[in-house]
Amino acid sequence: MAEIWKGAPVVAAMKERMLADTARLRERGVIPTLAILRVGQREDDLAFERTAIKRSGTVGVEVRSVALPEDVDQEILVAQARVLSEDENVHGLLLMRPLPGNLNERMVRRAMRPEKDVDGITGISLAGVFTGSDVGFVPGTAQSVMEILDYYGVDVKGKRVTVVGRSLVVGKPAAMLLLGRHATVTMCHTRTADLPAETRRADILVVAAGKRGIIGAEHVSPGQIVIDVGIHVDENGKLCGDVRFDEVEPIVGAITPVPGGVGTVTTSVMLEHVVRAAKKNVSLD
Amino acid sequence: MAEIWKGAPVVAAMKERMLADTARLRERGVIPTLAILRVGQREDDLAFERTAIKRSGTVGVEVRSVALPEDVDQEILVAQARVLSEDENVHGLLLMRPLPGNLNERMVRRAMRPEKDVDGITGISLAGVFTGSDVGFVPGTAQSVMEILDYYGVDVKGKRVTVVGRSLVVGKPAAMLLLGRHATVTMCHTRTADLPAETRRADILVVAAGKRGIIGAEHVSPGQIVIDVGIHVDENGKLCGDVRFDEVEPIVGAITPVPGGVGTVTTSVMLEHVVRAAKKNVSLD
Repeated sequence: MAEIWKGAPVVAAMKERMLADTARLRERGVIPTLAILRVGQREDDLAFERTAIKRSGTVGVEVRSVALPEDVDQEILVAQARVLSEDENVHGLLLMRPLPGNLNERMVRRAMRPEKDVDGITGISLAGVFTGSDVGFVPGTAQSVMEILDYYGVDVKGKRVTVVGRSLVVGKPAAMLLLGRHATVTMCHTRTADLPAETRRADILVVAAGKRGIIGAEHVSPGQIVIDVGIHVDENGKLCGDVRFDEVEPIVGAITPVPGGVGTVTTSVMLEHVVRAAKKNVSLD
Repeated sequence: MAEIWKGAPVVAAMKERMLADTARLRERGVIPTLAILRVGQREDDLAFERTAIKRSGTVGVEVRSVALPEDVDQEILVAQARVLSEDENVHGLLLMRPLPGNLNERMVRRAMRPEKDVDGITGISLAGVFTGSDVGFVPGTAQSVMEILDYYGVDVKGKRVTVVGRSLVVGKPAAMLLLGRHATVTMCHTRTADLPAETRRADILVVAAGKRGIIGAEHVSPGQIVIDVGIHVDENGKLCGDVRFDEVEPIVGAITPVPGGVGTVTTSVMLEHVVRAAKKNVSLD
């Protein structure tokens, strides 16, 4: 029987930190503000936005939602990103992705200032993740993995960590963050010849493959920590992860659930990035 | 008894490729040109420059050497980098590093155009390595590892590759290149708990630790490919690598020697980057 590492207490601890910071900022007349730039009305985007607005209110961050029609011109979208980037009352800027197919995301990213790129999508932010320097921000989901490990008291130094999945949104940046904390990191993916061999020998297993249930009993071993980044809807309409929870949970030492695990933390990471950006702005840092 | 994978035939093959390209460029009136920007008179820098000049002549590339005095002002150095970056007759720009202690390398890097950054030191180049996109260039030594594997016909897809060392110059970019070719990559370093266990299970071992002789018989297993990136001078004044060659060579399947291995290839990689930059410029690519 594994410990179930939920996201809720991580979120609660982050909330306390943020409240302390935003109170100080508000004393100085600064209201940490996140602008969400959205094109169209995708249900995923709207759900995320609702969560962000709701949670932001509890930590003293304000959300400004900017919605453009699905058939918006590329130039107008880029101009809007630039305006928000230059607005001194906006501290963080989040672009909802993917954009509708006819729009060029790269052009929009280029219009964003790295200091406000709270989701870590600009080239400068990604270079910062790779070099381990503190420019821009780390992609939120990768950072969430670290927040969970930190909250539950895991020191990754010298530990074997296997990361399954090599996306720019989670797998690669998580690998870099873990390497920066001195873990021995193995990166696996669809072409890995013997995935169970790689995952079983890990002390910590980070699964960000984006494939429902690809990790089962044969992939894990006793005592492991399993962080499940996946989020899917199964045939019964229930949320589930990349890990077959019912199979894996009885074997390993600790596991994050889906829902209620990593996904719960990402909104808070984003908001904390906004707070950090605002702090830098008034040199509270 | 291992196959000894020397750098010389790799260099010879690259020379043929480059000569074909530079001939076509010269027909179009373009002389691919590398500018080397150097501060002071460090013996290492001068030795590299001599090799670069000598080899460039054999492949149709021109080298322009710009030397500044050791006590040069920061502003003058940055201005010089900018001038060379803007000069349309310069296709590649190489900054000799490290700079003398009082100079800010970051400011110089920022003055360099990524399209001319043939050593892959700008933020944009590094972001490109991380994201797997084709902006800027890959750091030369990391690229040299790939050139050797390619020349000797190694397909890394699905193979276990262990990289020892996590520098921005070799370890990290090499890991990203190998991952991009679908290897399962493990990154080890000084904090790795059980280095022999990690290195012995690799199909391919890339050693870029920068520590003389840290890899010995206990770290390797039969049939492995060992790429030794290290270069050191031993107590008798002889060049040697990160790998104890005499111990390892009888066990493994193939190994690169030091000297005469990876180090031999880096100058050619740099020159080929210059040729590629020049080709892009006249849309021969």
